[in-house]
Amino acid sequence: MTTARSNDAPTAMIDRVASLLQVFDGGHRFTLAEVSRRAGLPRSSAHRILGRLVDLGWIERRGFEYALGIRMFELGSQVVRRDGVHQAALPHMHALHRSTGLTVHLSALQSGDVLHLERIGGWPEKGEGWRLGARQPAVHSAAGRALLAQLDDADWPALSYPPPATPGGVRTEADLRREIDRVRDRDGVAVDAEGCSAGVTAVAAAIGPSEDGLSAALSLCGPATAVPVDRAVAAVRRAATDIWYAAFGVTRLRGRPTRPVHAALPLADALTAVARG
Amino acid sequence: MTTARSNDAPTAMIDRVASLLQVFDGGHRFTLAEVSRRAGLPRSSAHRILGRLVDLGWIERRGFEYALGIRMFELGSQVVRRDGVHQAALPHMHALHRSTGLTVHLSALQSGDVLHLERIGGWPEKGEGWRLGARQPAVHSAAGRALLAQLDDADWPALSYPPPATPGGVRTEADLRREIDRVRDRDGVAVDAEGCSAGVTAVAAAIGPSEDGLSAALSLCGPATAVPVDRAVAAVRRAATDIWYAAFGVTRLRGRPTRPVHAALPLADALTAVARG
Repeated sequence: MTTARSNDAPTAMIDRVASLLQVFDGGHRFTLAEVSRRAGLPRSSAHRILGRLVDLGWIERRGFEYALGIRMFELGSQVVRRDGVHQAALPHMHALHRSTGLTVHLSALQSGDVLHLERIGGWPEKGEGWRLGARQPAVHSAAGRALLAQLDDADWPALSYPPPATPGGVRTEADLRREIDRVRDRDGVAVDAEGCSAGVTAVAAAIGPSEDGLSAALSLCGPATAVPVDRAVAAVRRAATDIWYAAFGVTRLRGRPTRPVHAALPLADALTAVARG
Repeated sequence: MTTARSNDAPTAMIDRVASLLQVFDGGHRFTLAEVSRRAGLPRSSAHRILGRLVDLGWIERRGFEYALGIRMFELGSQVVRRDGVHQAALPHMHALHRSTGLTVHLSALQSGDVLHLERIGGWPEKGEGWRLGARQPAVHSAAGRALLAQLDDADWPALSYPPPATPGGVRTEADLRREIDRVRDRDGVAVDAEGCSAGVTAVAAAIGPSEDGLSAALSLCGPATAVPVDRAVAAVRRAATDIWYAAFGVTRLRGRPTRPVHAALPLADALTAVARG
């Protein structure tokens, strides 16, 4: 009986649950009245749905406020944990962070943004956009441009051009195409000098051609005054290649064994000292 | 009209969505037939719900298989990002990792488990239970016992006693109570020698008394042969206190300014070399 009735309007109900959870995007806490208003749901429905979501652990209630619950975190963290590229990337990311002192991100294109799937390193401590699970506009980010450069222009997602952090940043599609040409000239490695955040330089490379849709980029970021760009370019390119080999289980064609990334990096100790502050 | 109808059976529909998402707990991919069987839903409902969840990005489809989608990761990662203790803990965790070379976890009690909300450090590379977002049985884990020791026994969640990794581990409630007494004798710091995983020693302290329900523990873990337990106990206790002060904005009563954690830690460089090995 329930089956027959629910089948009539399942998507309507899913959309209600979705619009309700969407309210919490950004990680805030809201009262019932606020949730109801922001989700555009009658207060009674919002209350009933919230109650069930609290039982499930998807939403948690503290006093009169609601927020996303720990179960969302737990389910969500499995999304990246099951990914082969993420698994293959982790040891290389740790090695790269140890040897350079710079922060290492693994990021994927999501609509017109890059979304950070993994992050190793504490710098920058502030800067919401650099956090694990946060987004940055693809056009401003080194990782985004490395991923766009790998695609045919016809396959680009819809891109937005919010104001860059500094005057030299990408403002128009023409600016972006110039940057993408540079990435392609640099054999796929993108460099961004303060396009996302003033004071932050980032260097990124896409991780190989992937057959299964999720294409990720590896990037290094550090203080604009301290990143030795040429060496960072070489380090990121090498690590991205190594991760691709590790993820797809292909034997290297070179006649010598693959060196661990951290043994191959000449990035300055001085830099480490600066970035670790 | 939709409102009226959905209000009749909203929890039934939410439960369907929940039971369907629950199928993916553990991070697997399944075909429609598998999802339908595991969720106990008719194939047609499963198909309809999956379709909508794919539109929303909560589930992704590759070929004939479904898996949790990136949107779950994005929403989920905001759960810990908004938390004040997590925010306050991050710089201290990075400093502790840098100065000791050991892996630092921030974990919370969830039913009878600890759930890792944050992790800084790459070791152990294998070992599913030590990952970000993973769970370990509270009775076996240093973090779990530190958190249990803080609670009145009457407030303990239902605990399970799966077989420990080594013969000396906790098997019964009597074993657990002995361990909890030791934690309380050690002023709240828990030490676990290989209870969760052979070869892994962990040292944990709860982060102060929290007023808002979510109580988290800070822990250090490293190779059983290399962790200098006494110094790790002191380091974890100090860092947990510093995080508590930072999170709750209380001025220290001591007459001198708070020293940064990494300047105060005497853990051996030799250890760093071993653990980073």
